[in-house]
Amino acid sequence: MADKDCVGVRVFSLNCWGIRYLSKHCSQRYQMIGEMLCKEQHDIVLLQEVWSEKDFLYLKTKLTSTHPHSHYFKSGVIGSGLAIFSKHRIHDTFLYRYSLNGYPYMAHHGDWFGGKAVGMAILNLAGLTANIYVTHLHAEYSREKDSYLSHRVVQAWELQQFIRHTSTGADVVIVGGDLNMHPQDLGCRLLMSYTGLRDSYVETAKFDGCENGMTLIADNLFISKNELIPFEKGIRIDYILFKGSSKTDIYCDFMSTTKGSVPGHALPYSDHEALTAELRLESHIPAQTGSDKTQDTPTEKLAELVDTLTEARTEVKVGLHCAERMRYTAARTGVMGLALLFLELAIAAVPCFALGAEQPFPRISFYLLAALCFAILLTTFLLYIFYTMELKSLQGAEDQMRLAAGSLQEKLRGFSVTQPHSVPQRSPDGEQLCALDPEE
Amino acid sequence: MADKDCVGVRVFSLNCWGIRYLSKHCSQRYQMIGEMLCKEQHDIVLLQEVWSEKDFLYLKTKLTSTHPHSHYFKSGVIGSGLAIFSKHRIHDTFLYRYSLNGYPYMAHHGDWFGGKAVGMAILNLAGLTANIYVTHLHAEYSREKDSYLSHRVVQAWELQQFIRHTSTGADVVIVGGDLNMHPQDLGCRLLMSYTGLRDSYVETAKFDGCENGMTLIADNLFISKNELIPFEKGIRIDYILFKGSSKTDIYCDFMSTTKGSVPGHALPYSDHEALTAELRLESHIPAQTGSDKTQDTPTEKLAELVDTLTEARTEVKVGLHCAERMRYTAARTGVMGLALLFLELAIAAVPCFALGAEQPFPRISFYLLAALCFAILLTTFLLYIFYTMELKSLQGAEDQMRLAAGSLQEKLRGFSVTQPHSVPQRSPDGEQLCALDPEE
Repeated sequence: MADKDCVGVRVFSLNCWGIRYLSKHCSQRYQMIGEMLCKEQHDIVLLQEVWSEKDFLYLKTKLTSTHPHSHYFKSGVIGSGLAIFSKHRIHDTFLYRYSLNGYPYMAHHGDWFGGKAVGMAILNLAGLTANIYVTHLHAEYSREKDSYLSHRVVQAWELQQFIRHTSTGADVVIVGGDLNMHPQDLGCRLLMSYTGLRDSYVETAKFDGCENGMTLIADNLFISKNELIPFEKGIRIDYILFKGSSKTDIYCDFMSTTKGSVPGHALPYSDHEALTAELRLESHIPAQTGSDKTQDTPTEKLAELVDTLTEARTEVKVGLHCAERMRYTAARTGVMGLALLFLELAIAAVPCFALGAEQPFPRISFYLLAALCFAILLTTFLLYIFYTMELKSLQGAEDQMRLAAGSLQEKLRGFSVTQPHSVPQRSPDGEQLCALDPEE
Repeated sequence: MADKDCVGVRVFSLNCWGIRYLSKHCSQRYQMIGEMLCKEQHDIVLLQEVWSEKDFLYLKTKLTSTHPHSHYFKSGVIGSGLAIFSKHRIHDTFLYRYSLNGYPYMAHHGDWFGGKAVGMAILNLAGLTANIYVTHLHAEYSREKDSYLSHRVVQAWELQQFIRHTSTGADVVIVGGDLNMHPQDLGCRLLMSYTGLRDSYVETAKFDGCENGMTLIADNLFISKNELIPFEKGIRIDYILFKGSSKTDIYCDFMSTTKGSVPGHALPYSDHEALTAELRLESHIPAQTGSDKTQDTPTEKLAELVDTLTEARTEVKVGLHCAERMRYTAARTGVMGLALLFLELAIAAVPCFALGAEQPFPRISFYLLAALCFAILLTTFLLYIFYTMELKSLQGAEDQMRLAAGSLQEKLRGFSVTQPHSVPQRSPDGEQLCALDPEE
C-alpha cells in the first residue's frame, strides 16, 4: 500500500426484528433484506435480532456469492441475535456476554433469554487490521420509569471496556448496533468518551435519511405512536461508530438511513431503520498484508496449533453430544411427567364429577402423584433451559474454533506456496491437515 | 529508562481454598498467608478461591502498607474468588466470565455457583504496561471419567481468546492461577500455543520446590491420597505464565513452590502449594511513563470522563439499592412461606396422630396450602439466587468504575501539577472533582 492510500468501506447495520411467528411479516422481510444486501454489496453487514439460526442460514445461502464470510454469535437461551456478513475474510471472532441483562421472569420483555452480548470479528481491509463490533443492548421499555437503566449502564460500561481492551492492536475500529440509548444518554456518553469512538451520523460529510438521523420513526408501519411518547417523530438509538489509529485516519463521506417503507415494497425492512455508512480509511504507514497476530509464528508451531485446535474441537463436539443427550433426556422425562399427569386426571375424572360419592382413587395418593408430576415438569423445564444454554455456548466455541482453524490453514497454505519444502503437511498422528475442513 | 534497562518483578500465586466454615483452619491459614505476604512483599499477588469478601478485606487491611493497591473480582452467586494485590497502582481492570462452568445441580462440586472467570489488571511496572491475569478453571473431579472436560476446554479457549485480544498493547503479560490442568492437557496446550505464553517452571534458571513443580502434593496435610490416584506423589495444576513483547524481553531467574506445611507452623497455607516467580524484564526501547490509553486525552476530555463516570456510578448504585431491596423482599417472602408451612403442619399435627379420626382441617385445603408454601419457597429461593448474582455484577461494575475514576483523577492531578492554570477543577455542575473519592 502506498503512502496515504485510500480505502473505501461500506458498512450496513440493521436491527432485523426477527422473532419467528411473532414479528410481523418476518420471512417476507428477511427475503427483502437478503435481496437488498445482494444488490447493495456492502463490505460489512452487521445485523441484530436475527433470533433464529434458520434465518441466519437463509441469509448465508442467499449471500454466498456477495458475502462469502459470515459469523453468527451464539449465546443465552435463544441466542445473541448478532450476525456479521463480510466480503473480506474473518480471521478471528470473540464474544463477550454482558453480565446483566434484565430478569428471567420478565418473559414478555424477553431480553434475559436473548443473552445479549457484543461480538467482535477481526478482518483484514486492504492490509489494515479492522476490529468490527456488533452489539445490541437491553431495550428501554419506558423512558420515564426505566427499571433497566442500571443494567444498560453496566452493559455500556462493559461494552466500552471490551472495545477499548481488545482494539489496542487494531488500525481501524467499527462498531454497529442497536444501543437502545439516545445520543445524549449516560451509557452513550460513557461509551463515546472512554473509547474515543466517533458517531458516523455526527461526522458524516453528507447525509440522506430521517430527520435527526432517527432510526425508530413514527412513519414506520410497525411502530405504534404510543411507544414513542414523548418523542412524536421518533428517536435515534441505532449507530455506526468508528475510530482510526495512529496509523490510519478514518472519515465518513456519506451516511444514510431508510425512511420507513421500502420503495417498491409495501413493507419496511424492520421496525428499526437500516443504517449505511460510507467510510474512507487513509493509511499513513505502509501496511502489512497479514492481519492477525499469528503472522510471526513459524510453520511448525502453526501446524501444531492446528492439531491442538482439531483436538479441542473434537472434545467440544463430545461435550455437545453429551449436552444434546442430556437435553433430550430432560425433554423425554418432562413429556412422561405430563403423560402421567393426564393419566391421573383421566382416572380421577369420572368419580370427581359425582361429588360426595366414594372415590376409588385415594385422595392422598392423588395429591402426592400430582405434586410429583408438577415437580418433574418444573425440574425438566429448568434443565431443558440450562442444557439449551450449555449447547449454545459449546456450539459458539466450536464455531469460533472452526473459523480460527480455517484462518490458520489459509496461513499454512500461504507458507506452502512460498516455502514449498518446509511445510509439515501432516500432523504428528499422520492425519492430513486439510482433513480439518473449516466449513465442515 | 535507559537502553536495555532491567526491572525485577516478584509474582506470587496461590489457590487459598477459602470456603468459610468448610475449608479446614480457614481463618488461621488466612492469618498465615497475610503475615507471609507482608513479610515477602511480592510485587504482584494473585489469589484464587478467596470465596468470602470478608477474607479479602482482612487481607486488604493487613497489606495496606505493603500492597496499597488491590482488586477483588465479583461474579456469579458466590463470587469469582479471584483477588489481586499489588505494590504498583492498578490503572484498569476487566473481568471475563466463562460461558460454561459446570452444572447448578452439581451443588456438591460447587463450581457453577462460583462464577469462574478471568480477571485482568493493567499495571505500570517502571514505565512498562503490564497486563496481569488471574484465573481459576473448573476442577477435575475424576481423571478417568471427567464429565467437565468439554467445559474446561471451552474455558481454556475463552481464556486464550481473552488474553490474546486484550494484551495486544501490553509490554509484558503475566498470568497466574489454578488452571486445574496438567501441563500436557489439551486446554494447557491450547492456551500456551495460541498465546505464546511461557511456563515459569519450565523456563526458570533456578528452581526450589516440589518435585516436577507439583502444586497438589501427597505430602500436604489437607490432601487425601485417594484424590491424587493415579498420581501418587502429586500433580502440577497451578501456573505462573508470562510473555514479553517486541519492546520487552522477559526471563524467569528463580521459581519456588511451598512444600506442604510451612516451616514454623503446623499447617500449610492451603491444600494447593503457593508459587513464586522472580521475573526479569529487559526493555529495548525507552518506555513512556504513562501507562493507560487515556494518556493522550486532553484535560477537558478527562474531566468530562470523570463526570460521566460519576454519573454512571450513581446510576449503578441506584440499581444496587433496587436489587438489594428486591432480594430482601424475596428473602422476607420466603421466610413467610416457611412460617406458613410450619403453622399448617402444627395445626394438622394433632389429628394426624389419631389416624382414622375425623380431621378438622379439610384434606384438600391442607394439600393446596402445602403446595402453595412449597411454590413460594422455591420461587423466592430462585429469586434470591438471581438477585445475588445481579448484586455481584452491579458491585463488580461499581468497583471497576471507582478504580477507573481513581486512575483518571490521578492523571488529572498530574496535569494540575504540570499545567497549574489549565485544569478544570470543577465539573460542569459545580461539584468538586475531588468529591469523587476513589476509595469511597
